Amino acid sequence: MSPAAGNRPAGRDGWAQPDHRAAPDHEGAAHRGPGAVPRGAGERPAAGGSSFHEMWRDLAPIGRSAESGGYRRFAWTGADGDCRQWFRAQAEGRGLTYEVDRNGNQWAWLGDPAAGDAVVTGSHLDSVPDGGAFDGPLGVVSSFAALDELRARGAAPTRPLAVVNFGDEEGARFGLACVGSRLTAGQLTPQAARELRDADGVSLPQAMERAGYDPDAIGPDPERLARIGAFVELHVEQGRALADTPHAVGVASAIWPHGRWRFDFRGEANHAGTTRIEDRRDPMLTYANTVLAARKKARLAGALATFGKVAVEPNGVNAIASLVRGWLDSRAADEETLAAVVAEIERAATERGARDGVEVTVTRESFTPVVEFAHGLRDELAKLLGGVPVLPTGAGHDAGILSAAVPTAMLFVRNPTGVSHSPAETAAEDDCVAGVAALADVLEGLACR
Amino acid sequence: MSPAAGNRPAGRDGWAQPDHRAAPDHEGAAHRGPGAVPRGAGERPAAGGSSFHEMWRDLAPIGRSAESGGYRRFAWTGADGDCRQWFRAQAEGRGLTYEVDRNGNQWAWLGDPAAGDAVVTGSHLDSVPDGGAFDGPLGVVSSFAALDELRARGAAPTRPLAVVNFGDEEGARFGLACVGSRLTAGQLTPQAARELRDADGVSLPQAMERAGYDPDAIGPDPERLARIGAFVELHVEQGRALADTPHAVGVASAIWPHGRWRFDFRGEANHAGTTRIEDRRDPMLTYANTVLAARKKARLAGALATFGKVAVEPNGVNAIASLVRGWLDSRAADEETLAAVVAEIERAATERGARDGVEVTVTRESFTPVVEFAHGLRDELAKLLGGVPVLPTGAGHDAGILSAAVPTAMLFVRNPTGVSHSPAETAAEDDCVAGVAALADVLEGLACR
Repeated sequence: MSPAAGNRPAGRDGWAQPDHRAAPDHEGAAHRGPGAVPRGAGERPAAGGSSFHEMWRDLAPIGRSAESGGYRRFAWTGADGDCRQWFRAQAEGRGLTYEVDRNGNQWAWLGDPAAGDAVVTGSHLDSVPDGGAFDGPLGVVSSFAALDELRARGAAPTRPLAVVNFGDEEGARFGLACVGSRLTAGQLTPQAARELRDADGVSLPQAMERAGYDPDAIGPDPERLARIGAFVELHVEQGRALADTPHAVGVASAIWPHGRWRFDFRGEANHAGTTRIEDRRDPMLTYANTVLAARKKARLAGALATFGKVAVEPNGVNAIASLVRGWLDSRAADEETLAAVVAEIERAATERGARDGVEVTVTRESFTPVVEFAHGLRDELAKLLGGVPVLPTGAGHDAGILSAAVPTAMLFVRNPTGVSHSPAETAAEDDCVAGVAALADVLEGLACR
Repeated sequence: MSPAAGNRPAGRDGWAQPDHRAAPDHEGAAHRGPGAVPRGAGERPAAGGSSFHEMWRDLAPIGRSAESGGYRRFAWTGADGDCRQWFRAQAEGRGLTYEVDRNGNQWAWLGDPAAGDAVVTGSHLDSVPDGGAFDGPLGVVSSFAALDELRARGAAPTRPLAVVNFGDEEGARFGLACVGSRLTAGQLTPQAARELRDADGVSLPQAMERAGYDPDAIGPDPERLARIGAFVELHVEQGRALADTPHAVGVASAIWPHGRWRFDFRGEANHAGTTRIEDRRDPMLTYANTVLAARKKARLAGALATFGKVAVEPNGVNAIASLVRGWLDSRAADEETLAAVVAEIERAATERGARDGVEVTVTRESFTPVVEFAHGLRDELAKLLGGVPVLPTGAGHDAGILSAAVPTAMLFVRNPTGVSHSPAETAAEDDCVAGVAALADVLEGLACR
C-alpha cells in the first residue's frame, strides 16, 4: 500500500479532499496497453473523465500477460491482490470509509455505512483467462470517477453512497462465477464454497488464507445487504446491440436464463490406420454433428448455443477417440425457449449417436433462471438518462445475484466490436466518459435529491 | 533378473534344454487379465502352444493399469524395463545368445550371430497409452514359441535364427514411432533422436541413461542389418480383413502410405453468452464441419481419415474458441489417392472457414510412403503356409522400416473384432496357436532346409 493512502478529513457533505498522491499524474504512451483509453489532444475532460483516465492508466498493467496481451487476474492471486490494493488506495485517497466484508468483497463508503437505504455501485476487478481490460474494471473505475464527478458538480448526497468490488466474479480459478456476491446473498453455502478447488488442487479456503483473508468467516451477510437501497452496476456491453445506435449507454432489462450441459459421447478406441470405416464407433463424428446442430437450432430459435470446451480420450493422433466430452453453453430470452433448444440439440446428438454406434449422455451442470431487473429502478434510470435503449444481456453478473435481495439495475457502455472475454475487448474513450457521466447522473438522481 | 536365467549348454543343432524355472508352470484364472488367451479344457497343445501360454501369462501383468485394464509400457520406463528383463530371461532360459544393440534393441540368437544370412523374427513389447495385450507382444512371444516348436519338431537350422524386440515402436512417449528400428536402419539420425523429449521434458538420452543404457552409442548399425537374410514380423491384425475368412493367419502385401496433418482453425475468442450469432467467428464450427467432411471424402475414396486429437484455446465453457487445432491421420492404398483425399479435406475446411470467418492453415507433420514387402519372400511365405490371404495394412511397423534394408515379410493373426490400440484388443487362443505354428512353418521352411 502507498503510504499516501489513508483516511482523509471529510469536507462539506462528507466529501474529502482527493489525495492525488495515490494516483500520480504522470502519463505517457509507454503506459498504454490494449486496455488504454486514448485521450484526444487538447481535450478538456470533466472531473469524472479526468480521474477515470488516471485510474485506468494505473490499473492497466496489473496482471496483464506480455505474451497474450490479455489479463490474468484470478481470485486471490498476486495480480488480484494488486488490484485490491489499488481499490483500497482509491478509497482511502478519497477519504472514503474502506471495508472488507466477511466474503472478501471490498467496499468504499461515502457517508454512514450503517445508515441504510444506501445507493451502491461497482463491479469486479478479476478477469477470465486472457480477458480484456473492460469487463469488470470499467464498472469499478467508473464508480470512483462518478463520485469525483458528483463532487465536482457540488452534489450533496442525502443517502449513503458506496463503491463495491465483488470478489471472484468470473470464476476463472474455481469454476464457479460470482462467488463473492453468491456467498453474501446466501446463494452459495460456506460448505459448498469450501469444497471449491482450482486446477492445482488448492481449495478456496487455502487460497483466501494465503491472500491474507479468513476463510472461516465466509457466509451469508443479510445485514450488509439490508443497508442497500439500490445497486447499480455499470458494465461494458458484451455484444453489439448499442453499436449500431447513437447511444453510448443503455439500461439492462434482464439477464437471459442460461445453463451449461456436459455431453459425453462414448464410442470405441481403435487404431486410426487399420480400422475399417464400417467397423468404427467414432464419437468425434457425433460430437462434430452435434456442434453444427447446436448452431442451427439456436439460430432458428433466436437463442445462443456454443461448444467452446472439449476433452478427448485418449486424444492420440492415430487413435479413434473412445470418449469426446463437449460442454454446451446455451442461453435464450426465456426459459421455455432455452429448454426447447437444448432438448433439440440433445435429440440431434442422440439420433446421430445411434448412427455412429456412439452412446450419448447429457448432464446439466448449472442453470441460472432468468433475471428481470426491478422495473421501478430500471424505469427511473431510463428517465434520469433521458430515453436510452433498454436491452437484455446473455451474461451473468453480480447484479444478477444481488437482484434477488435488493433493487438492482445495470448500465451498459457501448462496445464497438462486441468482443468480450478477449484481449481485443474495447470501448471508445468518449463512450467510457459518457458512461461515467451517466452513472453520475444516476447516483445524483437517486442519492442527492 | 531371475537367478535361473543364464546361458545354458547347447544341445544338438544348437538347441539348449529349456529352463522352465525362468517361466514357472503354475497357472490359475487369477492370473488372467484382459490379454489372457483362454485355454480349452482337456486340450493338448503343441510344444509351441504350451510355451506360448506360459509366456503370455507371465507377461500379462507387466505395465497393466488396474484403472483402465490397458497397458502403459512406454519406452525406457519401469514397465518397459520389466518387459525387457522378461525378454532376457526367455533368451537365456533357452540358452540363446543374448545381445543388446547400440540402439537398445534386444536380440536372442540361435546359432552364430556373425555367420550372416540369418532369419530374424520378432516385434516389440512397448505399448500405446492404454493399449492392448497383443500389439507387439504377440509377435515376440510367438517368436520364442515358434523356436520351441521347431525344437520339438526336431528341426535342424541351417541358418542362424534370432528373436528381436525393437525398442520404442509405438512412439507413445517421445512422439515418434519405431525409434529403435529407425536408428538401426539409419532412417533417424542420432542428432534428431537426441532432440526427442517426452511430455515431462525428459530427453530420449536422459531416459535411456536412467534405464541403464548408453545414449552416446545410438546410431545406424549397417553391420548388424547385414547379418539378416530375412526378417519376418508376426502381428495381431489391426482390422477385420481375416475375421470373415476361414483363415487364422494372413501374409502382408504392403503397408499403406500414411501421414499426419495439423489443421489450425483460427477464429476470435468471445463471450459465449453475449456474442450475436452473426458477430461470431467460431472455429469450432469449421472444425466440426471438417471432421464430417474428412469421413465422407475418405469413405468415397476407399481411404481412411480420422481426427482423434484436438486442442482448443482458451477451452472455456463460456468462451467461443479462438483456436481449434485438430490432427488428421489419413491413409490410403496408394499415395495418389491419399494426396487427393487430403486435398479434398483441406478444400472443404477452407471453404467452410471462409463462411465462418475462420482462417485455416494445414501443416503436414509426417508422411510415410507406401511399403511394398519383398515379393519373393512374401510369395515364399504364402507357399509355405499353403494359400493364405495376402492383405495390406494401414499401420506402420518395424518391418516397414527394415524393408528398406533387408527382405521383410509380415504375418497377421486374425482379430475377431478388429479392435486395436485399446484394452479390448483380442485374438482367439486357437488363432494365436495357429500363428505360432505358421511362424514355425515359415522359420523351418526358410532356415531348416
